[in-house]
Amino acid sequence: MVSFGSDNHSGVHPEVMAALHAANEGHVSAYGDDPWTREAEDLLRQEFGADSVPILVANGTGANLIALQSCLRPWDAVVCSDVAHINVDEGGAPERILGSKLIGLPTPDGRIVPEQLAATCERIGDEHAVQPKVLSLTQSTEYGTVYTAEQAGALVSEARRLGMKIHVDGARLANAAAALGISLGEAAAMFDADVISMGGTKNGLMGAEAVVFVDPGLGDQAKWIRKATTQLMSKHRYLAAQFIALLSDDLWRRNAEHSNTMARQLGERLVEVGVALTQPVEVNAVFAILPEPGELQAQYHFYEWLAADEYRFMCSWDTTDTDIEDFIAAVGLMSGN
Amino acid sequence: MVSFGSDNHSGVHPEVMAALHAANEGHVSAYGDDPWTREAEDLLRQEFGADSVPILVANGTGANLIALQSCLRPWDAVVCSDVAHINVDEGGAPERILGSKLIGLPTPDGRIVPEQLAATCERIGDEHAVQPKVLSLTQSTEYGTVYTAEQAGALVSEARRLGMKIHVDGARLANAAAALGISLGEAAAMFDADVISMGGTKNGLMGAEAVVFVDPGLGDQAKWIRKATTQLMSKHRYLAAQFIALLSDDLWRRNAEHSNTMARQLGERLVEVGVALTQPVEVNAVFAILPEPGELQAQYHFYEWLAADEYRFMCSWDTTDTDIEDFIAAVGLMSGN
Amino acid sequence: MVSFGSDNHSGVHPEVMAALHAANEGHVSAYGDDPWTREAEDLLRQEFGADSVPILVANGTGANLIALQSCLRPWDAVVCSDVAHINVDEGGAPERILGSKLIGLPTPDGRIVPEQLAATCERIGDEHAVQPKVLSLTQSTEYGTVYTAEQAGALVSEARRLGMKIHVDGARLANAAAALGISLGEAAAMFDADVISMGGTKNGLMGAEAVVFVDPGLGDQAKWIRKATTQLMSKHRYLAAQFIALLSDDLWRRNAEHSNTMARQLGERLVEVGVALTQPVEVNAVFAILPEPGELQAQYHFYEWLAADEYRFMCSWDTTDTDIEDFIAAVGLMSGN
Amino acid sequence: MVSFGSDNHSGVHPEVMAALHAANEGHVSAYGDDPWTREAEDLLRQEFGADSVPILVANGTGANLIALQSCLRPWDAVVCSDVAHINVDEGGAPERILGSKLIGLPTPDGRIVPEQLAATCERIGDEHAVQPKVLSLTQSTEYGTVYTAEQAGALVSEARRLGMKIHVDGARLANAAAALGISLGEAAAMFDADVISMGGTKNGLMGAEAVVFVDPGLGDQAKWIRKATTQLMSKHRYLAAQFIALLSDDLWRRNAEHSNTMARQLGERLVEVGVALTQPVEVNAVFAILPEPGELQAQYHFYEWLAADEYRFMCSWDTTDTDIEDFIAAVGLMSGN
Repeated sequence: MVSFGSDNHSGVHPEVMAALHAANEGHVSAYGDDPWTREAEDLLRQEFGADSVPILVANGTGANLIALQSCLRPWDAVVCSDVAHINVDEGGAPERILGSKLIGLPTPDGRIVPEQLAATCERIGDEHAVQPKVLSLTQSTEYGTVYTAEQAGALVSEARRLGMKIHVDGARLANAAAALGISLGEAAAMFDADVISMGGTKNGLMGAEAVVFVDPGLGDQAKWIRKATTQLMSKHRYLAAQFIALLSDDLWRRNAEHSNTMARQLGERLVEVGVALTQPVEVNAVFAILPEPGELQAQYHFYEWLAADEYRFMCSWDTTDTDIEDFIAAVGLMSGN
Repeated sequence: MVSFGSDNHSGVHPEVMAALHAANEGHVSAYGDDPWTREAEDLLRQEFGADSVPILVANGTGANLIALQSCLRPWDAVVCSDVAHINVDEGGAPERILGSKLIGLPTPDGRIVPEQLAATCERIGDEHAVQPKVLSLTQSTEYGTVYTAEQAGALVSEARRLGMKIHVDGARLANAAAALGISLGEAAAMFDADVISMGGTKNGLMGAEAVVFVDPGLGDQAKWIRKATTQLMSKHRYLAAQFIALLSDDLWRRNAEHSNTMARQLGERLVEVGVALTQPVEVNAVFAILPEPGELQAQYHFYEWLAADEYRFMCSWDTTDTDIEDFIAAVGLMSGN
Repeated sequence: MVSFGSDNHSGVHPEVMAALHAANEGHVSAYGDDPWTREAEDLLRQEFGADSVPILVANGTGANLIALQSCLRPWDAVVCSDVAHINVDEGGAPERILGSKLIGLPTPDGRIVPEQLAATCERIGDEHAVQPKVLSLTQSTEYGTVYTAEQAGALVSEARRLGMKIHVDGARLANAAAALGISLGEAAAMFDADVISMGGTKNGLMGAEAVVFVDPGLGDQAKWIRKATTQLMSKHRYLAAQFIALLSDDLWRRNAEHSNTMARQLGERLVEVGVALTQPVEVNAVFAILPEPGELQAQYHFYEWLAADEYRFMCSWDTTDTDIEDFIAAVGLMSGN
Repeated sequence: MVSFGSDNHSGVHPEVMAALHAANEGHVSAYGDDPWTREAEDLLRQEFGADSVPILVANGTGANLIALQSCLRPWDAVVCSDVAHINVDEGGAPERILGSKLIGLPTPDGRIVPEQLAATCERIGDEHAVQPKVLSLTQSTEYGTVYTAEQAGALVSEARRLGMKIHVDGARLANAAAALGISLGEAAAMFDADVISMGGTKNGLMGAEAVVFVDPGLGDQAKWIRKATTQLMSKHRYLAAQFIALLSDDLWRRNAEHSNTMARQLGERLVEVGVALTQPVEVNAVFAILPEPGELQAQYHFYEWLAADEYRFMCSWDTTDTDIEDFIAAVGLMSGN
């Protein structure tokens, strides 16, 4: 089966599998008190700052909730895009676990613009209104777009003026950093992020994400929040081994560049066969108009999106040229080209 | 390093590692819509009943909370032993996520007795009091003891009379079933369990647990609860592959019997060298009095327990005779024998 | 001081005050086990149905949360207008206490239309998405408009088709019923309401609201929800006495008709002096454009609303012709007329 | 009806009723921005300290939750007596609303002793365990006993050593202060309280309590917590008027001394007719052994307590000598004296 449904339809990168094997030796303490965890945390601090506080967790919803919980008082609200993963794809876990309102701002392409922020803060000081306290940005966005450094700077400057903290949902931060040709740390610094959900699973891991508190003060109590959010894994070395592999020999960048390249190629080929794209291809996602895909969708597992006849196609670390050419051929057959 | 600290200090059993490898092939849908998950669920239904509803989750705290959430209305309470994992070792996650009070009953050995239940229900119908609705039992218990079929039957009979549902925290259900010489399904049926947290991680998996709704009506909505509890893993096949291995060729029983045997041996040898045990050794835990263990504790990583000079020693699927003899020798040296 | 700021800026109606006095005699059981509560509940059942289950609570946010909690599973969502009181004026209490997402639909005048509902339910069955389960309507709306029977019928028909329950936030249900010339029960039946928050405080009470479960099955457990939401008052007879007064001799209608009449008069007079209204005056609220009100606002305490230069003016059970004429005169002075 | 069931079975003191009347004049802003509230807050600051932050709320459960919420991080626990109102009589609202575990310490008479505290803090720093952060004490206790200054001092000193904040549930603080012959402020200072739930309803009010943040830093955000806990009342002047009456002309002390005196008299008379008391009578509660009270209980509405044949008798601001003598006569008849 070849799927363009999601970058989590692919398996585990061989280097990650090898790292899991290497870690499977003897006894170590559980819950993160082990050499692999210490090494993974060191590598994360090398990326995101010597003072940053990294913790490892099981999945992305967990990462986002721990990151946000660390920033929020019970009556604070989170500002995000209306298509943000936390807003529409986490089953209401943010409201359930945080008890906080998410204020979803409409965006044409997943990117919030500075002009949208002030209106959310008009009732600061009013106890009848939730108090926006965190701006949660997704990089790369749910629409496969990437905030530029300039866009990020303007947005964050306005958020700071309004007294907000910055969270970056970086489930695909690697894809964005690869696209921008910068390091992971630079990708975080671009947003002056207080806390980052750093993705791994969509980029070749089996199941591991990190939360990195760039503002170390926010990370002081992270271990309690992680535990109370059910995200503390006992055989912690296996989370750590995955991250060690991801952050070694630039695996994160190699995987991200590959999936980005495949998506660009897929987008270009779709355009060549007459399919219209609805978003620019900036990372590993392609959004396109494909009326009545029928069998093709069953075969390639891609998802319908929000606009009429709009579909999303994700490429992964293991997507091949052949996968794309086979798919393009099938699109051509379908449309009778 | 050899540890008697916990059965999660050991690594992943080779058969499980092999299963993870075998699953690492090509693309499949995420979140459980894949052949491995279907097979794992089939195997769990073979153990726990054709109508039961099994789901896989990342860890034990997650399993317990999903199981309990399925049984509770917002004002209901959970009755458990005062040393229950949910009561003292889950960082307050039950109160946070469920919003429910846990009523911890004092127990000398982790086992609740029927006579304790009625008092918790004296205020049924009174809106000023929480309403006990679930009896949560741990099998084997946190003190390494095992409810017999007779004990379980009497307890459950009283719980049913009082209108309670039954949850079994089976983080070590395999050890109990192995000790009793019964199947996993029989170990659940012994308690007439409505829902079980079925452990895997402590018995040779990398990190995977199951929740099995023996009462299928309780499982109807489990997928939403799992998602909202942050326990839905995206690359789900890797959870499933672990459970397939565990439930194939009786791996669960082989591992459990081994760790149980090692603990019995450890207990016997400790007694031989003059160390007093504080609990009978019924599964893979040994509780013993060891005044001033000093260096020994640093070397073998075992934990202090509740009574004065009481320590807990856990054996695992990979504990060896040599590990035990080396340890006994060290105990002997320490005490000058 | 004369205020057009809110209908809760007025005091307690003399008949209500007299009822409080009359109730202040001797000892009675607390928490609702008293003759006044039984009488108030009888009167509410006379209005809303012999099988309905009424409970009394301290305030409107409490009433709304208890009503909604009774309808929601933890992963369900509430659909409401984007200007609904629960969505923007309850300090995030719904998200905090219910743990549920509110889906706010844009409305020009506070009234949702049937065509808006289906889109909220496109992901029914998808565990990654919240599941809309309750349609919460405000009657009269936060913009002083009133759903007609026809509008309500069409809306509810669509909500039922989509499997939703119906909650009516009737903080000003009396004003709507008075405007429509129907009974309170008819005002609820118009929406086929499952549960109603029946307001009292804004209509001449000191501080008392009711939740009426028209679907008695929803009310079975209301007393626990009320207690856990901190809305159970101990000296309950004083809540009850207020509601007895409100439902006796049509006080609710007399008060509502008066405030409605005053608002209509205020709206007409504003138009006469050249002030533009932004909403029709259907109950006791007037929305008008008043550039730079300056001193006038300080004197009459009215609030700025959402559009540019838009202000809200509320009339109350005790607003007088003189209040209005004095205010109109002041508006005239301000504008130099 | 004459009740010894609870001090909330009595009505509203005439001076309080008069104050409600006096406040029922004209329009004022809602939600606490009114002259009555400012005066009530001034009076509370005169009692509890010029820098303290007082807020008014609807009821005692609300007061306790707001007080505790202000002190707690999501993973913190509350230490209290096992018979504390928050632990057994608030319908699980603390766990629901705070999401926190309450650690109930066994007490023979409602009073915690310093030696009990250290054990609750043995796992400070351990993320698997809740972290005790607040010691919540009830003064006077649920058993009608009163902490002496010496007892309070020793307890608080130990709590401070362990890093805990101090909450006093003062639903009957007035009764304790009256019994000790000290001011309300001294009754708070005795505990070095960070925050107090200051009762009113049980001492002659209709329904009003205060939360006083003696540590003003804790009160900074109280208004949001009050709103999100559904405890912000709109026609706020009526809460304030009650507190103004309570704190004027020492009404709080007059009422408390009266009910204390009546209870002492009731206790003495019970002993005289051969009834054994189970607790000393220090405030307005009498606990006594009364086998098979039968009709007497139906007539006087007193509640069974925890020990066999133990009953609680509460006196109120309006309990009379005649009430007591009639009751004693009835007890005599019952026992055939």
